[in-house]
Amino acid sequence: MKLNILGCYSATPRTLNNPTAQILEIKNHLFLIDCGEGTQVQLRKSKLKFSRIKRIFISHLHGDHFFGLPGLISTFRLLGREADLHIYGPKGIKEAITLLLKLGDSWTNYRLFFHELNSKDSELIFEDDKVTVHTIPLTHRVYTNGFLFREKPASRSLNVVAVDKYAIDKSQFTNIKKGKDVTLDDGSKISNAELTFNPPKTKSYAFCSDTMYQESIVPQIKEVDLLYHEATFLDTEQHLCLKTKHSTAKEAATIAKKANVGQLVLGHYSTRYKSLEMFKEEAQMIFDNVLLAEDGRTFEV
Amino acid sequence: MKLNILGCYSATPRTLNNPTAQILEIKNHLFLIDCGEGTQVQLRKSKLKFSRIKRIFISHLHGDHFFGLPGLISTFRLLGREADLHIYGPKGIKEAITLLLKLGDSWTNYRLFFHELNSKDSELIFEDDKVTVHTIPLTHRVYTNGFLFREKPASRSLNVVAVDKYAIDKSQFTNIKKGKDVTLDDGSKISNAELTFNPPKTKSYAFCSDTMYQESIVPQIKEVDLLYHEATFLDTEQHLCLKTKHSTAKEAATIAKKANVGQLVLGHYSTRYKSLEMFKEEAQMIFDNVLLAEDGRTFEV
Repeated sequence: MKLNILGCYSATPRTLNNPTAQILEIKNHLFLIDCGEGTQVQLRKSKLKFSRIKRIFISHLHGDHFFGLPGLISTFRLLGREADLHIYGPKGIKEAITLLLKLGDSWTNYRLFFHELNSKDSELIFEDDKVTVHTIPLTHRVYTNGFLFREKPASRSLNVVAVDKYAIDKSQFTNIKKGKDVTLDDGSKISNAELTFNPPKTKSYAFCSDTMYQESIVPQIKEVDLLYHEATFLDTEQHLCLKTKHSTAKEAATIAKKANVGQLVLGHYSTRYKSLEMFKEEAQMIFDNVLLAEDGRTFEV
Repeated sequence: MKLNILGCYSATPRTLNNPTAQILEIKNHLFLIDCGEGTQVQLRKSKLKFSRIKRIFISHLHGDHFFGLPGLISTFRLLGREADLHIYGPKGIKEAITLLLKLGDSWTNYRLFFHELNSKDSELIFEDDKVTVHTIPLTHRVYTNGFLFREKPASRSLNVVAVDKYAIDKSQFTNIKKGKDVTLDDGSKISNAELTFNPPKTKSYAFCSDTMYQESIVPQIKEVDLLYHEATFLDTEQHLCLKTKHSTAKEAATIAKKANVGQLVLGHYSTRYKSLEMFKEEAQMIFDNVLLAEDGRTFEV
């Protein structure tokens, strides 16, 4: 699992600061999460393959998370895309995109599916045999969701030595990998634990931006490997969080600690601060394993 | 008069190629013409002052001329803008912008005026004591206007020596500057030509993009100092012009020649070509004074 940060700054795009967009590579998927203005240029810089993006998840309809989407959709058309594209985002996103396409008389020649969200509870919004994606309801000035990406457990892997030892027939391998015990011809029972190894641990990633400090998300993101939590401000500007419905680095770290996550990635920084190191220092007072998102940076789990 | 090219490439934004946007500095105005994705970042790079932009002219509602506008409007708000902003563009632009602001619950705290265009004839869309702006109806896949910016003639300047010679009273100076003749006390008439110098020649700029080759614009842009005419293709790709409703460098030069303009600036290049010099060479077969737009380049008249 690999997270590619295309942009991780709040508010206005600047020469060296891009608004929110990231690509999560998970089990052969390339999921685009948020799409601020300039995302397609950041995608080009990243060398990730545009055409592999099949699903786009938009947290909320503020410009710095969304205004790059109409252009990306148009670019897919210009690049000759034929594959379906699925867009998950707040109610209204379909109206906005279809109006912009209509005004430019620029219908896509691929199929565009909108999955509009308006539930205040977490929902399963995508699932295949390898991965699930759930919404994480957040608290911001407008309707906002984070997203929880989770690998499904793989099959158990066969302990070839043990299977040989008991001369178990191949026809039983599928059941064994599913975790079933085996009864031999002599009636003796071999426990699955003896015949298999645990599958690799599944990985999980939670994207939580934009949001104010909100403990109710803790149970849902419990023990995820990687948590991206917004940290727009430092604690010295905590008074701005209530008005703008954002979080501080300290608050992000508190959520990370309570949820006992593997690693915390901070992002969505206000451009008022001269250095990002202050965000890390503040968060590390609460939680050890803190990483700083930066445009172009990648994180592997 | 100074033209600042912020972006001059067609279709998709790329790492080093920005879609259409330019700033015309004319008589203390800073007019923004078109606003492709990434325009606000290009504006930052140009060091032009955001807040001086009071009027934005949008040629048509294709993404590469328009998708940077919602973000720029939001950024104006974040920068604390209070001054009115006027937007001139095709019918539908108001609906698109207001929908995007509504979805983000992000109303501007300055006044936003939309001047929607739908006439097929040229219209005077802005005028003050120094400048006029007219639309130039173009032919593209969607409703499109170019824009003609023209300085108004200044007053004639006083020939102080001549005025002294005839001992003309100051009270008559205003009329003389307006071009009136003077009758002296002895009844003799002094022609205005003897008392004044011509005012500086007024300057004019015509922006014509996107459009296919269209001779009907020639009378309107006759003898403008600077003509920006799109040249999406080279003559070798002329067959693409009919389908896409674009022009070649040769066609742009033909318009420039017929209109006897001062200088021709080419732009809106397709990114399929390796070098821009070929555009210049092709155009110079027809018309001498050819300049190449490039992102970040400026042209002074």
